[in-house]
Formats: sequence, structure tokens, C-alpha cells
Amino acid sequence: RTLKGLHDAWSGWLVVLLVGLAAGTCAGLIDIVTKWLTDVKLGTCSGKFWLNQESCCWNSHTAEPSGTGCSEWKTWATIFGVENTLIFASLAALLVKMFAPYACGSGIPEVKTILSGFIIRGYLGKWTLLIKSITAPLAVASNLSLGKEGPLVHIASCCGNIFAHLFPKYGKNEAKKREVLSAAAAAGVSVAFGAPVGGVLFSLEEVSYYFPMKTLWRSFFCALTAAFILRSINPFGNSHLVMFYVTYNKPWFLFELVPFALIGALGGLYGAAFIHANLAWCKFRKNSKLGNYPILEVVVVTFITAAASYPNPYTRIDASMMIAELVKECGPVMQNNLLVKISQRCQSFSNLALALLFKGIITVFTFGIKVPTGLFIPSMGVGAIMGRLIGVGVEQLVYNYPDCALWKTSCHAGHSCVTPGLYAMVGAAATLGGVTRMTVSLVVIMFELTGGLQYIVPLMAAAMFSKWVGDAFGNEGIYDGHIRLNGYPFLDNKEEFTHTTLATDVMRPRRGDQPLTVIEQEGMTVGDLEHLVRTTKYNGFPVITSHESQQLIGYLYRRDLILALGGQMARLNVIVETPINS
Amino acid sequence: RTLKGLHDAWSGWLVVLLVGLAAGTCAGLIDIVTKWLTDVKLGTCSGKFWLNQESCCWNSHTAEPSGTGCSEWKTWATIFGVENTLIFASLAALLVKMFAPYACGSGIPEVKTILSGFIIRGYLGKWTLLIKSITAPLAVASNLSLGKEGPLVHIASCCGNIFAHLFPKYGKNEAKKREVLSAAAAAGVSVAFGAPVGGVLFSLEEVSYYFPMKTLWRSFFCALTAAFILRSINPFGNSHLVMFYVTYNKPWFLFELVPFALIGALGGLYGAAFIHANLAWCKFRKNSKLGNYPILEVVVVTFITAAASYPNPYTRIDASMMIAELVKECGPVMQNNLLVKISQRCQSFSNLALALLFKGIITVFTFGIKVPTGLFIPSMGVGAIMGRLIGVGVEQLVYNYPDCALWKTSCHAGHSCVTPGLYAMVGAAATLGGVTRMTVSLVVIMFELTGGLQYIVPLMAAAMFSKWVGDAFGNEGIYDGHIRLNGYPFLDNKEEFTHTTLATDVMRPRRGDQPLTVIEQEGMTVGDLEHLVRTTKYNGFPVITSHESQQLIGYLYRRDLILALGGQMARLNVIVETPINS
Repeated sequence: RTLKGLHDAWSGWLVVLLVGLAAGTCAGLIDIVTKWLTDVKLGTCSGKFWLNQESCCWNSHTAEPSGTGCSEWKTWATIFGVENTLIFASLAALLVKMFAPYACGSGIPEVKTILSGFIIRGYLGKWTLLIKSITAPLAVASNLSLGKEGPLVHIASCCGNIFAHLFPKYGKNEAKKREVLSAAAAAGVSVAFGAPVGGVLFSLEEVSYYFPMKTLWRSFFCALTAAFILRSINPFGNSHLVMFYVTYNKPWFLFELVPFALIGALGGLYGAAFIHANLAWCKFRKNSKLGNYPILEVVVVTFITAAASYPNPYTRIDASMMIAELVKECGPVMQNNLLVKISQRCQSFSNLALALLFKGIITVFTFGIKVPTGLFIPSMGVGAIMGRLIGVGVEQLVYNYPDCALWKTSCHAGHSCVTPGLYAMVGAAATLGGVTRMTVSLVVIMFELTGGLQYIVPLMAAAMFSKWVGDAFGNEGIYDGHIRLNGYPFLDNKEEFTHTTLATDVMRPRRGDQPLTVIEQEGMTVGDLEHLVRTTKYNGFPVITSHESQQLIGYLYRRDLILALGGQMARLNVIVETPINS
Repeated sequence: RTLKGLHDAWSGWLVVLLVGLAAGTCAGLIDIVTKWLTDVKLGTCSGKFWLNQESCCWNSHTAEPSGTGCSEWKTWATIFGVENTLIFASLAALLVKMFAPYACGSGIPEVKTILSGFIIRGYLGKWTLLIKSITAPLAVASNLSLGKEGPLVHIASCCGNIFAHLFPKYGKNEAKKREVLSAAAAAGVSVAFGAPVGGVLFSLEEVSYYFPMKTLWRSFFCALTAAFILRSINPFGNSHLVMFYVTYNKPWFLFELVPFALIGALGGLYGAAFIHANLAWCKFRKNSKLGNYPILEVVVVTFITAAASYPNPYTRIDASMMIAELVKECGPVMQNNLLVKISQRCQSFSNLALALLFKGIITVFTFGIKVPTGLFIPSMGVGAIMGRLIGVGVEQLVYNYPDCALWKTSCHAGHSCVTPGLYAMVGAAATLGGVTRMTVSLVVIMFELTGGLQYIVPLMAAAMFSKWVGDAFGNEGIYDGHIRLNGYPFLDNKEEFTHTTLATDVMRPRRGDQPLTVIEQEGMTVGDLEHLVRTTKYNGFPVITSHESQQLIGYLYRRDLILALGGQMARLNVIVETPINS
């Protein structure tokens, strides 16, 4: 008995521990597979097909010093490298369509709806987990403008749902299960970005509906376990838990808050425009014939993306690699050395501007196609480019007009005192904030992502301006927009209502109405229930103790009642049909 | 009208901005004054009494290279340096007793009670703010085992209360005011530790009762503003926002989780013991004659602290300086070089052990005396010493038995692979967790405090074990203990109740009882109310619209009713007493 009490007390911690372990393992495997697929798209390791390019060339004597290849690594002969991306993308779309239609999209709107109390059967099941884990790397490797970070939240939630069923306390109680799911969502963001604290705050701010203190602790434990497992698997081969580790030599100055606020406002504008455009396109897809050809749509979008992104060096590489380059103090791609030749600088400037335009447009059409599509990395990519462009602009301005009163005291003439990489980081936060309308969790994720604790004020300024400007053009984030678009029953707990209506004014039945059709806890026969189902059309029935003391003890869906009646009927029929003298 | 609507919408942000500015400024001034007082205790700058030792010797040609003094700096002739500490401490106690009795203690239990809905008039007033801001530096400078971090939360809350009164929307509505106070508490921790995110989480986890999403955003904004202002004032003269900035060259290894868990468990044990001992002592003070001599008590505790701490180099210096030394990778105080002479190592080892014993005991008697007493720094100090001792022990173990299977793979023989400084950091988190029972906010504060993002797993392990072990010996933190001791009406929202009782079972009046004594919104005369007050003894009366529609619209305290009646009576009397033909 003591053992059972102990098990009951610890099962809450045990289940989140298991969820953390599973989420960390899934994320590690997905990262490894994604890296392998991205390389296999371009070539293969002769004799050892299971190695990616880096591992293949690790011990090779013919490895080129830049790490771009070796004799063991055979590159496929392709035109534009488009064929394999098409194969990957259509394979992903096929798998999703055949085995787990719920595996498409980012999953965050649905997880949010589930956490608000609505049940979508099978949405967090094993098949969704398996297919999403396989198709997310395929989708990323096919160079589409999407990320695997949103899907990781969905995958972690699936882990949470599956492990919750191992413990009757959590599996049989939807409210308790949601506590586990909140923790799992935190673990998902934790492994997606290596940001355990940010994950907990994301779950608190964006996903969860009801978040008591106990869930906060368990979420944190779950997120940390997951991050720790991911670090132990070490899929990127470097020991940093941090994705875009940056250290800038120069501090930021007060006058820079003006461009940071501007970046924030632009990020909010972009977010609002993106949400409107994406929702309009998704609505069009739903209401037109386009919705009947999901695989064709995926193939077309993949082809356009691949063809259009190939000529530009910034769009050709992986989006998270591009962000990592852009936030560097002095990235090799973007020469921010002031002495570099003008022609070269113009070249990379216009390349960046083109990449911004392309990424901004293609993401609208990508988010919503029938493969796993995350939105974090593409949004951050757009913002990083925008931020870097503005940063270079400010740098030039300060360099060319060193006597302006704004920065005269902070910057010494002839020195560059502006770090364009920081602007890219702020820009990434601004657009992500504009699209998702996160604030606190956004800032925490960004500084866990970059390790830049001292840049919290610029990040905060950008996040705030982004939210204010974004909210001015429409009060809902992309996830709320998709919830509304898909018609999920979601009651936003962030909305405020003025409490002037009395409960008696909205409650049914009113005086004179028929009494409610209810089910009593005891005393009703199968026949009574059958009669109830046959004579009414209600979607469900309140269950009360008795007509005398009308205490509500539950709610029974018509669907579930019919299922249960079916089973009873079958049993009754058997009894009746069996001859008495047999 | 548009302007008024805009003002209404923005006043929420404006008030937290102002609170943040005020809290940051207060914290900056307090830091500067504390530093000055700590130096003035030992000497003065000839001709420029307002300078502290560092500023005094800044431009001096006679400054000693170690920074310990210069010819301009005159040291007082004292015995044990005790006299000035006694003057400071008794001055602080006197000021508190004469002008603002609410300024004593840490203030966090009371702020917590206020945020749960209880009103303590004057607790967050101007006088409390002023006197606490003056006496906190005095108390710290008198070398008592206390910190100014807890009082800073109280001071920030005072700022919040005062600025809330500038806006009728917040000043006239207690519920709205509490939102501002939640944000102010976050700002308090933010400036105390330079930890904005930790501050918000502290407010969420430990202090606040009701924390909607909107308050989260505003708290974060407020905490950041305050941290930013503090950084601009730059009281410590270094540009790091971080108090104990550490960078370790060595990573931590998996086997070290065992000693970290041990440290966590010991921290939890210490916390439980401290809470019991301190509450017992405070109860004794309340119920015995000791409570009548608060100033004498302060003087005695100060004398004992000063006399006992002088011989030991670890207790002689300021507690936060000691912590900063202990968490360093290789602090000058504690030689962790393995080649240092045995006699010297034993010396510093026993000094540390003595400091641990002394600090652990004296803090029990210090927390609760009638000066501003913070508990964060003393608790962390005890933990840092404990952690460092265990860390040195583990280091020796690993060095002397390099072949043990546990660490053989991680550590190379002949090298030291254990960082005692990290153990000190973990120990500080463990004891602080044991005393306050924080978890998530504790870990976030610790890593914002030290900048050690990669040590989040050890910190978390220690925090979790600390909480589990501490909770096994008593479920309440020190703040909850003091709330209970002082008999504040606090309903803990972390407690869970099993919902089996029906509301009708506990509600009054029951069938057959007298109806409730209520006040109607309209139609009652002054005479009716006077009759009500005279004939009943209830502490307060529900206010309803009318006896027909018993809608509750408020609750009126007896005290407030009597006050209002008094005013009306006076006016009535004047009217009656004035002769008609005057």
C-alpha cells in the first residue's frame, strides 16, 4: 500500500522523465537523419551509404582542407540538384497522405486546441509520431522553406500522449493528461532550440491553457531531461547546446535602440502581412480544387523553391546555416569589412535583398502544404536577412558621418562600432515575434539560442515593438489564425470579457423551457438510454447523481453512448437468441 | 476622447515603465551608498568624505598596487573594527523603530500576503520606502549576516504602490494595483541580482497569486527597464550586469551528478533545519520579553557577529565578495592548486568549515531582527562554502584514485578535472532552494547571476533534490513559515484540495438559519446602517442590489462602514445643531 502511494506520488515525475527521454531521443535521431538526407541529396559515400559527407571524409587522406569533399564522396550528376528534392518532398507527401494525414503542418495550432480541452482522436497517436518523425527530415532535406522546430513540438506531444497511457492516473483522465502534454510541448521547444527555459515559457505563454505551478516544475524537469539527452546524443558534433552561438567583441550603444525599434516594427509589419497572406492562401486552398491535389502542390512548390533558390548563394544553403552565418560578428558570406571592394559589397547586398524577397514570398505558400512544416526557422531567416541589411546600412551611416551627435560620444571616428550580426539576431526575433506574437518566451528562446545574455534589452525592444505593431494590424498570431480557419472550438483565455452579464441570463433552461435531458447515475436501464438516443438529437448528455440532487458528475457524448449501447445490445442479443434448452 | 482611450490603453505600460525606472534608480543608489558605508566603516578619504576607498585612491600616486589603500585614505583606529558596525546597526534599528516599523525584515512574506488580496495599510508607503532604502545599506555595512536583495523586492513594491496611485485606474482598484505590484516584485529581483527573466519567474512562482499573461508581459518590461537603468547607473564600476560572472575552462562530467545531487540533498536538509530553527526563535522572541528590546537585540547580534567573524578571513569580508571568490575557477583565497603545501590547505579548509558553522548559526538569529534583513545572500553564502568544501573533497578523491571506473573515462590521470568553483555555485543554489523552495526561478536566477548557461543541468539537479529533501521535512518555505507565524490571512494557491465537498454543504445560511445580514445598494438610510452596526458584530457585510435580486456587488468592512458613518454623522449633527434662524 505504501508502495502504491509512493508510485502515485512519483508517477507524475516518472512520466515527464520518460517523455523527456523520448523527446530528446526523437530529436537527436531526427537531427542525424536530417543531416544525412541533406547530404545524400547531393551525393553518397562509396561503400558506406549510411555516412554523411562529414563522417565520410573524416578519415580520408584526400579530404580537401575546406571540408567540401573527398574522393570517397561521390556527388550525384544532377541538373540544378532538383531531382532528389522532388523525390524527397513527394515521398514525404505520400507518406503523410497514406499513413497519417495528421502529420502535416506544424501541429502547434492543434496541440493548442487539444490543450484547451478539445479532443482530436488520433492526433497524438503512434502513427502520427512515426510518420512525422520520418517526413520532417525529408521535408527539410528537400530544401523547402520550412523548419523542423514546430513539428518537434508536435512530436514531443505525441510522446507525451503515448507515455501518459502507461499510467492510468494520466491516461484515463483528460485533465491530467493535458498536464503531461504541456510538459511535452515545453520539451519539444527545448530540443528544437536547445532552450529549456524558453521551452517552458513557450508552453506557458503560447500553447498551454491551464498552467498550475506543479506543471511548471514538471515542464522544466521534462524540458531539461530532453535537452540533456539531446546534448548527450550530440547530433551536431559540437558540444555547444546552443544553436547559433555568438560572441560579439563590441557592446551595443544606446542610440542603436532606434534601429532596433525600427527592426521590431518592420518585423511586426512582416508578421501581420504574412498572417493575412497565408490565411488567405489557405482559405483559397480549402475552397478551391487545389485542395484535392496535395501531392501535386507539394511537388510544384518544391520545384519552384529549388529552381528559384539555386542561383542565390544565401538561399541555396540550409536556412539555419544561413541564419548562423548572418548572426556572426563578421560572417564570411557577408563581408562587413569596410575596406572590401564596393562591387563585391553591392553584389552580396543585392543577393541578400533578393533572398529576403524570395523567402518572404515562398514561405506564405509553403506553410500549409501537406508535409510537416515548421515556421520558426523560415520566419527567423527572413528577419535575419532584414536585420543584417539594416545593420549594414547603419554601419555605413555611422562610418560615413562620424560627427553626428547621436553616436559621436559612443563611436570613435574611423572605427566600426556597429555589429551587423547583432542586428540580424534582433531581426530574427522581430519577425518571429510578428508571426507568432510571443514576447517573453521569444526573448528567452533567442538568448538561449545565441548565448547573448547581455543583448536582452535590444531583443526585448524588438519583441515589444514587433508585438505592438503586429497587434495594430490584427490581434491574432498565426496559430490562432489557423485555429480559426480550421474551425477548432478554441476559447482564448487571453481575451478579456467585461463581467456584466449574469450567469442566469445565459444559462439554459430558462423559466418555461423544457427541463434538460440528463442521464442519472443510477437506475436507468439500457432501454431508457436507447429511448433517449432515439428520441433526441443532442450531441451529448449531462450525467447527474439523481433528479433530486442535481449534482453534475460528468458529460457523456452521444457518440460514446451509442458505442457503449452497441456493445450491450450485442451481449443482450446473444443471451436472448440462445435457445433456453440448449 | 480618443486621447483618453489611448491614455487608458497605455497607462498600464506607462505605470510599469515608471516603476521600473524608480526601482532601478533606488537599487543603484542603494548599491552606491552600501559600498560607501562599507568603506567608511573602516576609514575615510581626507578632505573628500563622500568618496569610497576605490574612488579616493583612483588618482592617488601613493596607491598600493594591490588596491588596498593609499595615503589619502585614513583608516580609523578601532578595536576589532566593531565600534562603527555597532553605530550603523543601532542607527538602522532606531530609524526603523521611530519612522517606519514596517521597514524591518525582508518584506517578501508581507508582499506575498498583500498580493494574495489582504491589505496592510502603509506597508508599501513612502515612509517605508524611504526608511528601508536608508537602513538596508546601514544593515549590510554593519557586517551582519544579511543581504539587501530581499529588501529590494519590498522597496520595488513600494515604488509600484506609489506610482499606481498616480493612475486612478490602478490606484483605485486593488485588483489592478496588485498587477502593478507583481511587476514591481519582478523588478525588485531583477535589480537585486541583475536577473530580469529570473525576476519575472520569481514573481510568478514565489510571490504572485494571480498572474495572467498580460501581467507576465508587463512584469518582463518592468524588470528589464529596471535592470537597464541599473546597468546605466553602473554602481559596481564594471560593465557586467552579472554579479558573479564565471567562466570555467573545464566542462562537467556525468559522474559529477552524484555529488551535485548530494549537495542538493544537503542544501534541502540545511533549508529545513534553518526554517525550523528560525521559526522557533522568532516564536520565542514574540512570546518572551525579548520582543520588547528590539534595538538591544540588534546591538547584541551585531556585536557577536563582528567579534566572531573578525578572526576568520572568510567571514571578515562581505558575504557577496566571499561568494564571488568561492565560485571562481581558482580563487586566490582557497588554493585549489594541488601542489600547494598541505599545512596551508588544511588551514584554509578548517577556516572554511568554521565559516560554514558560524554563518549557518548566526543567520538563524539574524533573520527576523528589526532591521531590513534579506535572506538570499546569507543562504547562498552557506551553500557556497558547503559546495566548495565538497568540491575540494571530490577533487582530491579523483586525483588520488584516478583508476576508479566512475571517472576513469572522463578524467586523465594527473590532471584535475573537477572545478570546485562549480560546486560552490551548485551549493549556493541548493541552500537557497532549501530555504525558499523555489525551483525554476532559482535555476534561472542562478544562471543569470553567473552567466553559466551550460551548467543548467547541475543547477537543476541540485534544485530538484533540494526541494524534494526539504519538502520531506516540512512542506513550507521560509516565507510561508513567516506568513503562518505572523498569522496573515493567506490562502495558498499551490495547495490542492480534493473536490468532494459540495458548495451547498459549506455555504451559510443553511436551511433554518437566519438570513444573511446584508446591505442593499439603494434605499437604506444612515439610520438603518447605524442600527445594523449597533445590533450585529460581523466583521463585514455583503452588498447586494436588492432583496429581490440578490446579486452580490461588493463587500463592505465594518471598519470602513463605521468610518463612513462617522463622517455622515458629523455632517448631520452640524445641520441639526445649527439654529434654524441663524
